[in-house]
Amino acid sequence: MNTFSKDTSILIIGLGVIGGSYAKALSKKGYRVRCITKEQKDIDYALELGIIESGSTEISGELIQDADLIVFALYPHIFVDWIREHGHLLRKGTLLTDVTGVKGQIVGEVQAMLPDGVEFIAAHPMAGRESSGVEYSDDRVFLGANFIITPTEKNTPEAVAFCRALGEALGFARISELTPEEHDEMIAFLSQLTHCIAVTLMTCNEAPMMEQYTGDSFRDLTRIAKINDVMWAELFLLNKDALLSQMDAFAKEFADFRELLRTGDSDGMRAVMRRATVRRTLFDKPKT
Amino acid sequence: MNTFSKDTSILIIGLGVIGGSYAKALSKKGYRVRCITKEQKDIDYALELGIIESGSTEISGELIQDADLIVFALYPHIFVDWIREHGHLLRKGTLLTDVTGVKGQIVGEVQAMLPDGVEFIAAHPMAGRESSGVEYSDDRVFLGANFIITPTEKNTPEAVAFCRALGEALGFARISELTPEEHDEMIAFLSQLTHCIAVTLMTCNEAPMMEQYTGDSFRDLTRIAKINDVMWAELFLLNKDALLSQMDAFAKEFADFRELLRTGDSDGMRAVMRRATVRRTLFDKPKT
Repeated sequence: MNTFSKDTSILIIGLGVIGGSYAKALSKKGYRVRCITKEQKDIDYALELGIIESGSTEISGELIQDADLIVFALYPHIFVDWIREHGHLLRKGTLLTDVTGVKGQIVGEVQAMLPDGVEFIAAHPMAGRESSGVEYSDDRVFLGANFIITPTEKNTPEAVAFCRALGEALGFARISELTPEEHDEMIAFLSQLTHCIAVTLMTCNEAPMMEQYTGDSFRDLTRIAKINDVMWAELFLLNKDALLSQMDAFAKEFADFRELLRTGDSDGMRAVMRRATVRRTLFDKPKT
Repeated sequence: MNTFSKDTSILIIGLGVIGGSYAKALSKKGYRVRCITKEQKDIDYALELGIIESGSTEISGELIQDADLIVFALYPHIFVDWIREHGHLLRKGTLLTDVTGVKGQIVGEVQAMLPDGVEFIAAHPMAGRESSGVEYSDDRVFLGANFIITPTEKNTPEAVAFCRALGEALGFARISELTPEEHDEMIAFLSQLTHCIAVTLMTCNEAPMMEQYTGDSFRDLTRIAKINDVMWAELFLLNKDALLSQMDAFAKEFADFRELLRTGDSDGMRAVMRRATVRRTLFDKPKT
């Protein structure tokens, strides 16, 4: 495995909102990006923007053999199926990475199916858009954002270093490592629970005309309620136990707060609010 | 009562983040703004920015007598206490308005205490900042935002028209009218419930280091968890029944969604997500 450099031949498989954002970030910095994706129109769009050198709607052995790094930006089950069906096309020495939102049920399965000499190092870019499709791709979402790498015992230090260099090239502010299991527990809270809450808030009261009266707080809490139902239902089910347990912790804390309100315990409510205020300052996005 | 015009002498009582934003918006458009507020440093700050003509830290009879429109931008109980203590200073023909986040328990009480010839028309600017203090004031938050007027049977059509003109001058995109009771029910859902959720999300899992792994969805859902605990505890208690009932509706819907996940009902989850997606498009902020 060579180090990540401008000579690295990068192949993105799946040119959607995230794959497209990778292509934008990397091509802008002079990296060589190609792609394989389902729709010719997405390739045409990317060619017109100049964010890929070339692309194919076919599973092209040539593109795959030429790639030093392949980024899989697919739905989880499509990624796993792809490896099962086309893994034999992969060239020894090619490094694979992904952008998948769950790791525990994916990483081990993919690693077990790979031919000798092909390594998969999983990563999760903690940035996205609520809309799907390459036309919504935007590499600026990576600035100031977090990038999580989830190595296993099958991974080499070289692959981790390569993946870190990729995260830096993409523009991420913080790059960290977790085990797949730690990642999934974290993500159940930070990302999946928030999507459950946003969807619930959007559907628990469907009185008419409310958009006439709303403020920014409701808009902020429901931005992600515009949701890719196919992908998120899949992600939730792949991380069911961890998500159920985070949902329970939230529901318990919510019920406790309700009880403070019901009993008119102003001091109690204020103490929780002050804890929230202090803790929230940790989560401000680093200035870029 | 004259119509709202550049000759209107406006007095803002309470120069915090909202009072300050009113002063900025109105002074920029050439309206005459003065203020009464607690701290001399806030007056100095506003004078330096040129957003007020003058100000006083005393309850100045002169400023009050000169005002055609007084905007109360105070915590609810301080507003009510102010009227009780200083209402006799108000001049016949002066119109009062406010920015208070609850109406049912405030509007009637204030209207009942006013001297003859002094009218109070309540309003709620649905825009704010999570930080307190005039130095965080920003009139741009009103652009594209909603302004709710809550007239009662004691209000004249002239006062409603005056208050609409004020909302327009402030830059609001949509101005609407609700009864105080309708307002409070709406606000329990759109604003108070969202703050309860944000605080709960911030405090239900306090594992260390999570800021290293977060994405924008968690940041968005917890922006308002930086909360003015004094003010919000008061607002919650003044609207307790409506808020409890919205919390229950949310908790019920959340438990239903949890059950879909627990039983692996992908189609059921996806149906809720699609409902959320469609409904959320209604709430996009109008482009300004």
